[in-house]
Parts: sequence; structure tokens; C-alpha cells
Amino acid sequence: MTKVKGLVCRECGKEYPVEPIHVCEFCFGPLEVVYDYQEIKKKLSKEKIENGPKSLWRYIDLLPVEYPSVGLNAGFTPLKKAENLGRLLGLENLYIKDDSVNHPTLSFKDRVVSVALSKAKEFGFDTVACASTGNLANSVAAHAAQAGFNCFVFIPANLESQKIFGSLVFKPTVVAVEGNYDDVNRLCSEIANELNWAFVNINIRPFYAEGSKTLAFEVVEQLGWRAPDAVVAPAASGSLITKIWKGLKELYMVGLLDSLKTRVYGAQAEGCSPIAQAWKEGRDFVKPVKPNTIAKSIAIGNPADGIYALQVTKESSGIWETATDEEIIEGIKLLAETEGIFTETAGGTTIAVLKKLAEKGYFSPKEIVVAYITGNGYKTMEVLEGHLPESIRIKPTLADFKEKILVKTL
Amino acid sequence: MTKVKGLVCRECGKEYPVEPIHVCEFCFGPLEVVYDYQEIKKKLSKEKIENGPKSLWRYIDLLPVEYPSVGLNAGFTPLKKAENLGRLLGLENLYIKDDSVNHPTLSFKDRVVSVALSKAKEFGFDTVACASTGNLANSVAAHAAQAGFNCFVFIPANLESQKIFGSLVFKPTVVAVEGNYDDVNRLCSEIANELNWAFVNINIRPFYAEGSKTLAFEVVEQLGWRAPDAVVAPAASGSLITKIWKGLKELYMVGLLDSLKTRVYGAQAEGCSPIAQAWKEGRDFVKPVKPNTIAKSIAIGNPADGIYALQVTKESSGIWETATDEEIIEGIKLLAETEGIFTETAGGTTIAVLKKLAEKGYFSPKEIVVAYITGNGYKTMEVLEGHLPESIRIKPTLADFKEKILVKTL
Ligand SMILES: Cc1ncc(COP(=O)(O)O)c(C=O)c1O
Ligand SMILES: Cc1ncc(COP(=O)(O)O)c(C=O)c1O
Ligand SMILES: [Zn+2]
Ligand SMILES: [Zn+2]
Repeated sequence: MTKVKGLVCRECGKEYPVEPIHVCEFCFGPLEVVYDYQEIKKKLSKEKIENGPKSLWRYIDLLPVEYPSVGLNAGFTPLKKAENLGRLLGLENLYIKDDSVNHPTLSFKDRVVSVALSKAKEFGFDTVACASTGNLANSVAAHAAQAGFNCFVFIPANLESQKIFGSLVFKPTVVAVEGNYDDVNRLCSEIANELNWAFVNINIRPFYAEGSKTLAFEVVEQLGWRAPDAVVAPAASGSLITKIWKGLKELYMVGLLDSLKTRVYGAQAEGCSPIAQAWKEGRDFVKPVKPNTIAKSIAIGNPADGIYALQVTKESSGIWETATDEEIIEGIKLLAETEGIFTETAGGTTIAVLKKLAEKGYFSPKEIVVAYITGNGYKTMEVLEGHLPESIRIKPTLADFKEKILVKTL
Repeated sequence: MTKVKGLVCRECGKEYPVEPIHVCEFCFGPLEVVYDYQEIKKKLSKEKIENGPKSLWRYIDLLPVEYPSVGLNAGFTPLKKAENLGRLLGLENLYIKDDSVNHPTLSFKDRVVSVALSKAKEFGFDTVACASTGNLANSVAAHAAQAGFNCFVFIPANLESQKIFGSLVFKPTVVAVEGNYDDVNRLCSEIANELNWAFVNINIRPFYAEGSKTLAFEVVEQLGWRAPDAVVAPAASGSLITKIWKGLKELYMVGLLDSLKTRVYGAQAEGCSPIAQAWKEGRDFVKPVKPNTIAKSIAIGNPADGIYALQVTKESSGIWETATDEEIIEGIKLLAETEGIFTETAGGTTIAVLKKLAEKGYFSPKEIVVAYITGNGYKTMEVLEGHLPESIRIKPTLADFKEKILVKTL
């Protein structure tokens, strides 16, 4: 693979070959994929990308995969101009990047899993696994079923029932761990040391994480090869937001963007906001917390990429903001009622934070602002119980309709 | 609109102008949109379509809308080669047309609603409504929120809670009618006579229904401008299947297909199979039935387009087949476990019927067969309760993992 030079330690810079490894053996820093941007720049063009497949694989030149074999339909989700929500927030150019309809399991995790499992096939693994807050498990289970891998997904035992069912239906082994995500993750790291399994977000993590860059690539292409002035994205482990920034940088480096001006804003649930807390307290390290929020998909108390996520907002002149559980529910409803998009708690967090930032004046009215909606509302439906208006029950008669509906609503 | 000639009665052929009407005033037959195919043929080409938007609006030349304004991201969903399921069924060229990830509400109804509400805007309506088995209500509510219509959705009171929530979140007035879909539909017809509302599947029905043609158009384009040898699609009112056939015919008429050879197979739930029953008994009329099936989205006992759906299978040399509730659940699981796609009960019906047809020898091994997956499994999750394997609960320790998981599964 001439496009990929190898892996490199984010901390000490030591280089490694392309292998299913993720930690530097010298300093324990995380490994990251390094590309030969000079080479890539020679071959890559807007036209080449535009003529590619209608999926994230149109950006294969900037992904660490040689032969895409899994998740061939993931990505290339709609970027929607949000006129109504924009009007409410005083933003004339607000867009929603809508991964709530990602193929096949309705979250941005279909991106990272497509890349991770294509890579796992190249490495020759026959068993895939993950530590997950729900969406990742759904996606790994679905793609493993289709691609013929054995599959083990590890989740906190108290996840939303929708997310548990949404894994079970694909018939992986679902391991419900008594503990929170950080317990699950610790256990999985131990298992990954002992077994020859491809844990997509542990030993395959350097490759897996690259999939999120496509959320930056697509937005830039869909805006007509322009970078947004600002983006708002949720953070759990901090990987997604780190890679959105890496994606923007790469487009700049290969000459597909002429400036790097996007401000990246991070959104966390107040009940689990270790990165936002670090930012507010001016720390460059992240103190682990015990999650306590309805936003279970982003409830990671000890975020693996927390410090890099912090660096991204610093480098890009963004900030971090949080949303309470109540604000998250209001965020879900606000997006649904204004734009007809039904998102889950992570998306509710993003919208709630977008609203706060807008109200506090972080955007000017004409700026292009993109909010990343990373998951679907059907998967966290239970949080809406008691928070929606009721349906009105009537008999199947015109008289009852007139009495109970027409008189009251018109 | 030079492409559209007007409306015509399917029964007596009387012509009408383009207006929000749906029934012939002479014979009470249903009205249908008629196009000027000569004109369209002159302007339409594969290239023009391929350069169009990545949505169903790339086929605007064959849709009854002048200015698409609603549902700009609907359609153009993946067509997936189903290698695993195909192998099981002895089909080398089996494809899944996957509307379970349609934008924004995860069913093929986003197609018909995009067309209906764009047309409702052209007609100048300010209030939209529908009689629905669930998916249509979700889609009308979402699109109405985004497009700024007042919205009333009418559903049977006993729908799946997921589908009710999936409407409520967009804040329409949800009218839960005590009765089955046919009661809902009758009531809505009465209301449509009295109020100046755009009932998408009643007075806007001729336009609405045209949206389903795009399920034929897209499949043909995605197969490289080839028609499938056979398709399997579910039927409730019978509109979808009728329009898939109309779509194929149109491509033939405008010269984008050189033959019309596709066999169209209809799938119904045994507990509500008035069209399949008519076919089995050799009738050319449909006797209404009382629905009793878990496949609520296709539980229409008195199908408005039943006789036309019957004609389609006759004309195209297809047949009708049914699936029991148990087979429907098996169908959902089979698709999930083999192809990593999670569909709802309507899709389970389609897969169960596909399997029966394959086993009975209706397809030859090399034929191109397309199964239409029209909705998402998250919306009917409750039917899976008690039908999936359980997750395995462990403590967050390597020892417990080894004892409870590793020993048992490897
Ligand atoms: C819907 C959703 N959004 C955002 C995230 C955050 O991702 P990351 O861990 O890369 O920060 C997750 C993580 O699981 C998620 O499920
Ligand atoms: C998921 C799904 N599939 C298929 C159908 C059948 O559609 P039609 O009424 O056009 O036959 C419906 C109707 O509501 C549906 O919701
Ligand atoms: Zn190092
Ligand atoms: Zn007539």
C-alpha cells in the first residue's frame, strides 16, 4: 500500500508497520495511521472522488484499506440545510449531517466498522469483537453477519433494550457486562491480549478510527468543496471528533481545501463530561468520571482519545459545552419538530449544545455551521416516555372526530 | 407541465385535469396520472438521470411534480447483492433493495410522501393528513414538520408503540382510532370530503402512489440498466406493487429498457391476505377480510388497489404467496443473520415469501431476483420479544468471561 506509510505513536513518534496493534511498546501511546500525502495528492482529485461509489469508499485514497469488502453501502448520508432550526437559532446556513439513516444500522458507527472489518479481513481474522455503548455493537454484529465473521459484542448490562435487541437480531454472542462502559472496555483490553480476535475499537482501533474522517470528507464535498466555518459533534471516547479534524486537515494537505478554518465544537452530556470538564478547568489531561446520564451511547467516563479531542478544540478555536438530560430530550424534540429528523440521545446532546453555542454568540449569522447527527431515535426511544404529547383516541365516526379533534385543534 | 397529460379513470377512461381528486365522478373508479411518454422520451436519457441528484428526484421526468420542495433526500437507497441468503436459497443473483434506511423515517413511505407533499405544496394546501398503518404516519409527520404543514395522522389505536412514538416526536396531531385500518380509512374518506386537507393517500392518492415507481427505476439503474427477472414485494393496499410494475413499463416505453420481462410476485401476511386469497381462488375481485396478523403495517383488509395488484401478477406471470406470523418472524431473523439487515414485519413477510417461492422452484438459479425490503426492524421490535437468543450476563472479570463465554462458545 503506497498510500499508507505505516503506524506511528502519537506520543513518541516511533514508527510501526501496518499490523493489528494499537499501543506503542515504548511509551504506551496510541498508534495512528500515517499516509504519504505527497503520493496521494498526485492521484487524488475532486472528479475522481465524485465519480466514485455512492458510499464512504469514494474516499478510499485516504482510508487504510486496500480491498473494501465489508460495509460497501455505508456512508454518503444526506447533508440537509436546516432552514427551520436555523431560523430559530439565528443561523442562515445551518446544516445537519444526518447519519441517523446510515446503512445498515443507523449510526455513524457503520463508517468505522466498515473500515475496521474490511481491514480485519485483510489481516486474516475470523473473529471480530468490540466494547460498545450500543451503536458499535449493533454495527459490528450486522456487518459480521453479512461478512461471515464470528462475533462477540460486549456491552454494559444496563443499555437501552432497543440497542440490545438491535444486536441480538444479528445473532452474535452478546456479552452483557455488569458494570459501565469503562469496565467493559477494561475487560475487553484484557481479552484482546489473550485471544486472537479483532476487537475493532481496541487492537484494530488505529484503522477503525480512520472511518470517522469520512464525516469530514462528505460534508466538504456536499458543501461544494467548501469547509464549514464551524462544526458541532458529540464525544464519548473522543475519537470521532479527533478524526473529523484529521479529515479536514487531510483535505487541506492534499489540496482539496484551500484553508483550514473550521472551528470544531465538542458536545458532551453533563452527566458524563470528562473532556468538557477538563476544558472548562483549563487542564490538558482528562480525569475519569462515573457516568450518570440518559445519553448512554456517549457515556464513557475514561475517554481513550480525550486529550486529543481537547487538542482539537484548542487547535481549531472551538470549545466544549454540555447538556443536561432534560436539555438532551428537548434537543431530540427540537430537531424532530423543526427538521423532521428523529435522533437518539447523542444527537439530542449535539442539538442542545448547538443551541447553547448559538445563544451565547459563538457563530455569526451567515457562517456555515454543521451539526453532526450520529444516531437514530428509534434506538433510544425509551427516554421519550412521558415527554411527548399523547395521541387522541376517538371512535371511527365523523361525529367523534369533530368533537374530539376538530373543535380542539382548529 | 408538458410531461403530465392529466388524470384518467382506470375504469372508464374519462380524463380529468391535474387536481387534488382521486375518484371518477361517473364510475367511481380510481384516477391515475397519465404522462406524455413521447415527449418524455425525447428528453430523457440514462446520462441525464445518472447526473441527477442522489435521491428519487433524479427521476423527476417520470414523476407528477414540477417543483420538488419536500423530501429532497428520499430514495436512492442501497441495492445489495445478497450472497449469503442467495446461497441458502439457491439463487446466485439475489438482491435486496433496502428501504429500511430510507431518509428520513426508514421506510419506502418516504418516497410516496415526498411526492405527495411536494404536490400538496403546488396545490396550495396548508394541512396534510393520512390514514396509516404506521409507516405512512411517521413519514407524513416528519415531512410536514420540516415543510411547515399542519399535520393530522390517523392510525389504528392498537399499533406498535414504536410506530406511535415515531409519529408523536414530530408533533403532529395523532388520532388513534378505535378500529382497524379499514375503519380508519373509511373515516378519513369522510373527513376528506368535508375539509380542505391534503390526505396524501386519499385525495392526493394519484400523485402519492407515483412515488413508488422509483423503487422500480432505482433497481433498474442500480443493476446497470437491466430489469430483474423477478421481484418480490409486499402488499397492503396493493399500491406499491402496482406502481413497481408501472415503473418498469414506463422505462420500457421511454426506451430505457429493451424488454418487459420481470415477473412480479406479491407477498401478504396469512392473517391479512385478501389479494393472495383472490389469486388462489382465481377471482378477479377481492373480498375484504378482518386483519389478524403481527404484520400491522400491511394489515389492510379492504385493499384499495387490490384488483390492480392482482392484474399485475397476472400480466407479469407472477403469483401471490403468504406467510404466517411465525414465518414472518423467521424471515426477519433470516435476513438479519445472513445479510445484516434488520427489517420490520413487512420485510419479514417478503423474505418468508421469497424463501417459499425459491423452495417451490419459481426462480432459476442464475436469474436476477430482487426482494423489496420496505421498512425498518426498530419500528416493530416488540414482535421479537421471546424470539431472540438472550445476552449472556457476566461480571467484568477475565475469569467470568472465560467460564461463562469462552468455554461455552468456542
Ligand atoms: C451515536 C453516537 N454518537 C457519538 C459517539 C461518540 O463517539 P466517540 O467514542 O468516537 O467519541 C458514539 C459512540 O459510541 C455514538 O454511539
Ligand atoms: C413497510 C411497508 N411495506 C409495504 C407496505 C404496503 O404498501 P401498499 O399499501 O402500497 O401495498 C406498507 C404499507 O403501509 C408498509 O408500511
Ligand atoms: Zn510511543
Ligand atoms: Zn370512470
